[in-house]
Amino acid sequence: MNAKDLTGQTIALAASGGLDTCTITHWLTQQGVKVVAITGDLGQPDETDFGAIEKRMRACGAVDFVGIPLQKELAELGMEGVQAQTCYESRYWLTTPYGRQVTALGIFAEMKKRGLKIFSHGCTGRGNDQVRFHLAANMLEPDFEVYAPWRDGDFLEKFGGRIQMIEYCEKNNLPIKASREKPYSTDANLLGLTHEAGKLESLLTPAHFVTPEMGVWAEQAPDKTEACSVRFEKGLPVAINGKPVDTLKAMTLANEIGGRNGIGIGLHMVENRFVGVKSRGVYEAPGMELLGSAYAFLLQLVIDRRARELFASLSDHISKQLYQGYWNDLATRMSRKAVAEITRLATGTISVSLYKGNVSFAGAEDVPHSLFSKDGSMEAEGSFDHKDSEGFLGVLGVHGRILARAGQV
Amino acid sequence: MNAKDLTGQTIALAASGGLDTCTITHWLTQQGVKVVAITGDLGQPDETDFGAIEKRMRACGAVDFVGIPLQKELAELGMEGVQAQTCYESRYWLTTPYGRQVTALGIFAEMKKRGLKIFSHGCTGRGNDQVRFHLAANMLEPDFEVYAPWRDGDFLEKFGGRIQMIEYCEKNNLPIKASREKPYSTDANLLGLTHEAGKLESLLTPAHFVTPEMGVWAEQAPDKTEACSVRFEKGLPVAINGKPVDTLKAMTLANEIGGRNGIGIGLHMVENRFVGVKSRGVYEAPGMELLGSAYAFLLQLVIDRRARELFASLSDHISKQLYQGYWNDLATRMSRKAVAEITRLATGTISVSLYKGNVSFAGAEDVPHSLFSKDGSMEAEGSFDHKDSEGFLGVLGVHGRILARAGQV
Amino acid sequence: MNAKDLTGQTIALAASGGLDTCTITHWLTQQGVKVVAITGDLGQPDETDFGAIEKRMRACGAVDFVGIPLQKELAELGMEGVQAQTCYESRYWLTTPYGRQVTALGIFAEMKKRGLKIFSHGCTGRGNDQVRFHLAANMLEPDFEVYAPWRDGDFLEKFGGRIQMIEYCEKNNLPIKASREKPYSTDANLLGLTHEAGKLESLLTPAHFVTPEMGVWAEQAPDKTEACSVRFEKGLPVAINGKPVDTLKAMTLANEIGGRNGIGIGLHMVENRFVGVKSRGVYEAPGMELLGSAYAFLLQLVIDRRARELFASLSDHISKQLYQGYWNDLATRMSRKAVAEITRLATGTISVSLYKGNVSFAGAEDVPHSLFSKDGSMEAEGSFDHKDSEGFLGVLGVHGRILARAGQV
Amino acid sequence: MNAKDLTGQTIALAASGGLDTCTITHWLTQQGVKVVAITGDLGQPDETDFGAIEKRMRACGAVDFVGIPLQKELAELGMEGVQAQTCYESRYWLTTPYGRQVTALGIFAEMKKRGLKIFSHGCTGRGNDQVRFHLAANMLEPDFEVYAPWRDGDFLEKFGGRIQMIEYCEKNNLPIKASREKPYSTDANLLGLTHEAGKLESLLTPAHFVTPEMGVWAEQAPDKTEACSVRFEKGLPVAINGKPVDTLKAMTLANEIGGRNGIGIGLHMVENRFVGVKSRGVYEAPGMELLGSAYAFLLQLVIDRRARELFASLSDHISKQLYQGYWNDLATRMSRKAVAEITRLATGTISVSLYKGNVSFAGAEDVPHSLFSKDGSMEAEGSFDHKDSEGFLGVLGVHGRILARAGQV
Repeated sequence: MNAKDLTGQTIALAASGGLDTCTITHWLTQQGVKVVAITGDLGQPDETDFGAIEKRMRACGAVDFVGIPLQKELAELGMEGVQAQTCYESRYWLTTPYGRQVTALGIFAEMKKRGLKIFSHGCTGRGNDQVRFHLAANMLEPDFEVYAPWRDGDFLEKFGGRIQMIEYCEKNNLPIKASREKPYSTDANLLGLTHEAGKLESLLTPAHFVTPEMGVWAEQAPDKTEACSVRFEKGLPVAINGKPVDTLKAMTLANEIGGRNGIGIGLHMVENRFVGVKSRGVYEAPGMELLGSAYAFLLQLVIDRRARELFASLSDHISKQLYQGYWNDLATRMSRKAVAEITRLATGTISVSLYKGNVSFAGAEDVPHSLFSKDGSMEAEGSFDHKDSEGFLGVLGVHGRILARAGQV
Repeated sequence: MNAKDLTGQTIALAASGGLDTCTITHWLTQQGVKVVAITGDLGQPDETDFGAIEKRMRACGAVDFVGIPLQKELAELGMEGVQAQTCYESRYWLTTPYGRQVTALGIFAEMKKRGLKIFSHGCTGRGNDQVRFHLAANMLEPDFEVYAPWRDGDFLEKFGGRIQMIEYCEKNNLPIKASREKPYSTDANLLGLTHEAGKLESLLTPAHFVTPEMGVWAEQAPDKTEACSVRFEKGLPVAINGKPVDTLKAMTLANEIGGRNGIGIGLHMVENRFVGVKSRGVYEAPGMELLGSAYAFLLQLVIDRRARELFASLSDHISKQLYQGYWNDLATRMSRKAVAEITRLATGTISVSLYKGNVSFAGAEDVPHSLFSKDGSMEAEGSFDHKDSEGFLGVLGVHGRILARAGQV
Repeated sequence: MNAKDLTGQTIALAASGGLDTCTITHWLTQQGVKVVAITGDLGQPDETDFGAIEKRMRACGAVDFVGIPLQKELAELGMEGVQAQTCYESRYWLTTPYGRQVTALGIFAEMKKRGLKIFSHGCTGRGNDQVRFHLAANMLEPDFEVYAPWRDGDFLEKFGGRIQMIEYCEKNNLPIKASREKPYSTDANLLGLTHEAGKLESLLTPAHFVTPEMGVWAEQAPDKTEACSVRFEKGLPVAINGKPVDTLKAMTLANEIGGRNGIGIGLHMVENRFVGVKSRGVYEAPGMELLGSAYAFLLQLVIDRRARELFASLSDHISKQLYQGYWNDLATRMSRKAVAEITRLATGTISVSLYKGNVSFAGAEDVPHSLFSKDGSMEAEGSFDHKDSEGFLGVLGVHGRILARAGQV
Repeated sequence: MNAKDLTGQTIALAASGGLDTCTITHWLTQQGVKVVAITGDLGQPDETDFGAIEKRMRACGAVDFVGIPLQKELAELGMEGVQAQTCYESRYWLTTPYGRQVTALGIFAEMKKRGLKIFSHGCTGRGNDQVRFHLAANMLEPDFEVYAPWRDGDFLEKFGGRIQMIEYCEKNNLPIKASREKPYSTDANLLGLTHEAGKLESLLTPAHFVTPEMGVWAEQAPDKTEACSVRFEKGLPVAINGKPVDTLKAMTLANEIGGRNGIGIGLHMVENRFVGVKSRGVYEAPGMELLGSAYAFLLQLVIDRRARELFASLSDHISKQLYQGYWNDLATRMSRKAVAEITRLATGTISVSLYKGNVSFAGAEDVPHSLFSKDGSMEAEGSFDHKDSEGFLGVLGVHGRILARAGQV
């Protein structure tokens, strides 16, 4: 789809008020497209002042602006990520994809209220976010059309990259804050923050090149251990350090506590994008890392070997589905339902000690479904009969010897 | 099998020279069993002085003693663990199970030389090590018998636990070093060290209760960043900090470098034993953690999404097989062959910076099979055509809308 | 546990009234154990006449007899097997394990009513059924004890096998029906029938050695095609050939229709028992095969590639869990919840034609969640834009070429 | 890429000599493109007479024609499919994808000899075959370009479907054999045959609507059982019915024997194409089904539970990779190496009896690596100690009770 097909129509644009969406709004308006700019408040540092964003977007030509509060929704989805331990390729807490899902839902609801049917966004044509928005739209609102300037030949001809956009905005006196010198780009919400592109595209640039925004590098963290406890009930954090919290509060508090101790700050990763190319990122997610570590300690007590194996594969599955934009399909729903069976057992208080990037186990209490028992003790306690092992191994050994005698070893 | 069935026979005993094997050797000798004590040198701190161990074992009644050098074999197997990223339940580098395999192979070879057919060990009847030794024997030497005192009713009746053994040794003037006060037990080899039992069986005991032996807690590590680079060729470390190494040297050097910076020190875990009970451990593996982290950064560059997914599941598979004692069966062989296809691509130099328990990516060079390329760049470079994404998403979107229209979302 | 520990106590014995349970009842009674014989009606050909069984069991010494109707429960569980397509090692419909679960539940409920706490069964010490009963008891009623004569040294000493039991029963005038000549043993319920042991233990014995009991071999089936249609609603069969059915009726009708056409009759399999040895069976399950095939045709229309992949692995998972006796644990519950998400989409009418062992697709109608659409047509219809494939392949191709240029192909 | 970009250049066209490739050749020639038509002999019924095809292609304007014998290569690849039991979505033997790989390799070699760099094919823009050819080219010959008329807007504008091509050919007097009435389309090679499109796109059309070409429907097969034995050595068939064969001969003989008994004939399937839409096919693969069934019986004897589980997942993996065109990547290579470990154990003679579509096990002999042994016998033979099960279950039961007492059941 091209901008020229849209002349005279009204579209909804997912807008952060940054360089991209300012440029797009102005350029589309020039082509006769009416742009309703919509911003979700995901708790990102720079994008929660709806008044300022509205001002900028209207200055760029937007016919209307809508700000949608989404922090609670995002925290709750992020907490489900903690429960499912969703780390893409074992590392990335998927903070941006969760944000995209929440944003899409919020914007689509607004669009339906207003009768809008064309959804537009500023994601590039090489990344994953375009896929997430596109599939969310196709699955949730199959009658919507999606228009992406970064896949529009006319737009691409004019704007090859960041530099051309800055020049365009300067020429048109658009109120952008971007500077020419920014050495990499950043995407943020309350769950986490990703740095990529720019100088980070060189593998000679160390992870430490990045300046953390949600906390500090371990080197800058205090040289003393901070104790922290989290009380989970049925998978949800209900108290931190004994103080009652709801999920949003838990996430913001965990961000603070984790961030100041360098937890989950500055994780380097070269990941496989859905479109088949590698991408390098440096990630921050102090709250998810802190809550996720505590939750992992709890899971170790609560799920047995068989459930753990299945959980591990479902966790990978959900992570991949979310990363690739398939959050809303049947397969994801199946995995989420399976994981929910575990979540309802996840009650307990986990204590950890935090020190310069390290989360160390400090204790577990009040875990009603714990499987940890005296039966595993090496001393003579519990119901486990050492002699039973003779039979156990006798049974296993028959198989071992059959293998050997069949020439299979 | 009971000791009384062995009277007059000669058996091989896997002996560390510690409390257990001293007690067992003396008790068996008293029953008329001839014990050949065999110790493998796995680089464990206390068990490499063959002279001292021999003296202790003979004092306990052993008719002979054999010391077998196994450090090189163990380092090489451990390095295969790095290549396959074998972490049981995502955390434990499986340092003890690798040790058991190497020990079993070494002892079985010695037994065949001497015509011995009864293999004995001091592993308890609730743990995993008995299974590893038992299955290794059944698969590799199906004509051997395995005798385990901790599954022998007569032995169990006399020795309920540590305390009774110490009393027995004291009464019989056996040269043990164990003290009654040791608050937990430790198993060590050059790959790593595990602490368990004793006070660690309480979940109120923090991980920090343990005193590290292969390095220091992050709190005690130097307050400055140490740079480290590892050159891998076809999966093997050939230089560290520019200095050529073989695999054994790489592992010992990595232990030193990692250990002094608190890398891989003091990891708490409640794991699922094969026999179905939970067990709590605190682990050290500084070298494997350091080499393993560097290797993981290399793999990120070299394997694509499809290979990565398969690798992740094979890595879990090998870990589980090894943990459960199935290292020598067909299934493990299959997975190892598959992983070897990746290993031959794993060439490159990875730089990391180490700081108080943290391993941070600092650079990658000379990676001939790297898939990281300009095609993923967000700027207008590389062969990736942004407009192709329009078609790509068009194709994906057909499916998305079909789902929606079939009422599946 | 040995019989002598039970003298004077009352136990519940899962009893079919066959050779094994007659022998066990009499032998236990002789040792002073009071046996309450309990039989579940699972629709097995020989075991539904409670009056006759009661007479036999009392003649053997049972102090009481209980018959429990379980056909409905079994049919419903079997139907869940159809929905999850649970075939152990891709072949066996797991008819016996489903029977064991239903029997265990029925008997445990009766035991609790009567205050009995010792559960006994006649399963041998090499098979899977002992594991299923044992784990069901341990998980569902952890305070019950399980006594299995075939693991009791005293019993084993007296009864090495079938022959000794027959002699014992003849000597004691017990009313058994077994003959010395039976060339294999059979276990049956309304879901299916398994033949094993005896002459079947030779791999030179063809599958056709067996005489089917739930239908006929393809060779004996009519030489004409029979049409059959099944209407499923949310995963349940609600009509067969247009005639309304409940689940039990569907299963029995499908047994008849399938059986007479040789469907699912006489499947040979050498399977891996949980205890690590191979076992050879010849199986019959005409109803599950017929309903299962029709259901598979329906699933082909309803689930997309991603859901299908997950379903396939969950189906294998459930099959293995059930086979190994872990039906009641968390992992199984997780998989069942995931599969239930699919089941609620499984509505449609599937027509098949049956001919001498073959089930051929004959049509599908009224499938509201079908994903089969004009978009896959090779002709110029539907919403799929052929040209989009250019972009789709452009995107995929970037990756393909990166692989090639990195020397990875 | 469009035809107009190719004017004056010489391209290689994968040509079967059918309606599509005749049309394409003529149309491209008219645009000034020089077409070298290349046909692989894959043993397909209509496409092995190189003389006739050459005549047709030259009549359509081809500047040259090359016929490449590929039957041996295809049979060998197909046999690897038997070894890995590659059935897409559990049903389809992937006969066409194997053919595409072999064809691509043959044509690319010829192109390199001639210095050609543009590869063209007549696969449509909604199917899987375009992906297979495209990715094979990108991975194996990254410097080649791929031109696909069915993704060329100019071509699509002129030729919407089959009817327009026939009219075009008739108008231009091209020597096509296609008739307007063909009710579905067919793709064939010596491994198998697929029917799709046309009337098959209605789900009201039964599978029996198709006329088999590699054998007969079960209804038309002889009313008597045919015995057949296959001797495998290290995974390869070396004798059928006692008569020595090489792999190609084995495949053709198995096609004959299987085909005349209705084995693997007329399998209906609605499958998930890579591009995300459903596609309905009716498949024939009598030789692969016959050899595959015999091989499956052999595998049942040779691989243990752990290897079987891994094999099952690798088999699915290879099937999916092949189906989606990723045959040549690292992940496929990993899986193939793993499966090769099993293949070298696959020696034995399997007898089956064939009757109207049914393959029944009739015996197994000379299987040196068989794991089937007396240890599984229900009678008192073998090394399995029934009493060991008491310990085995004691160990398992501890876990069962822990679950129960933790409120997890």
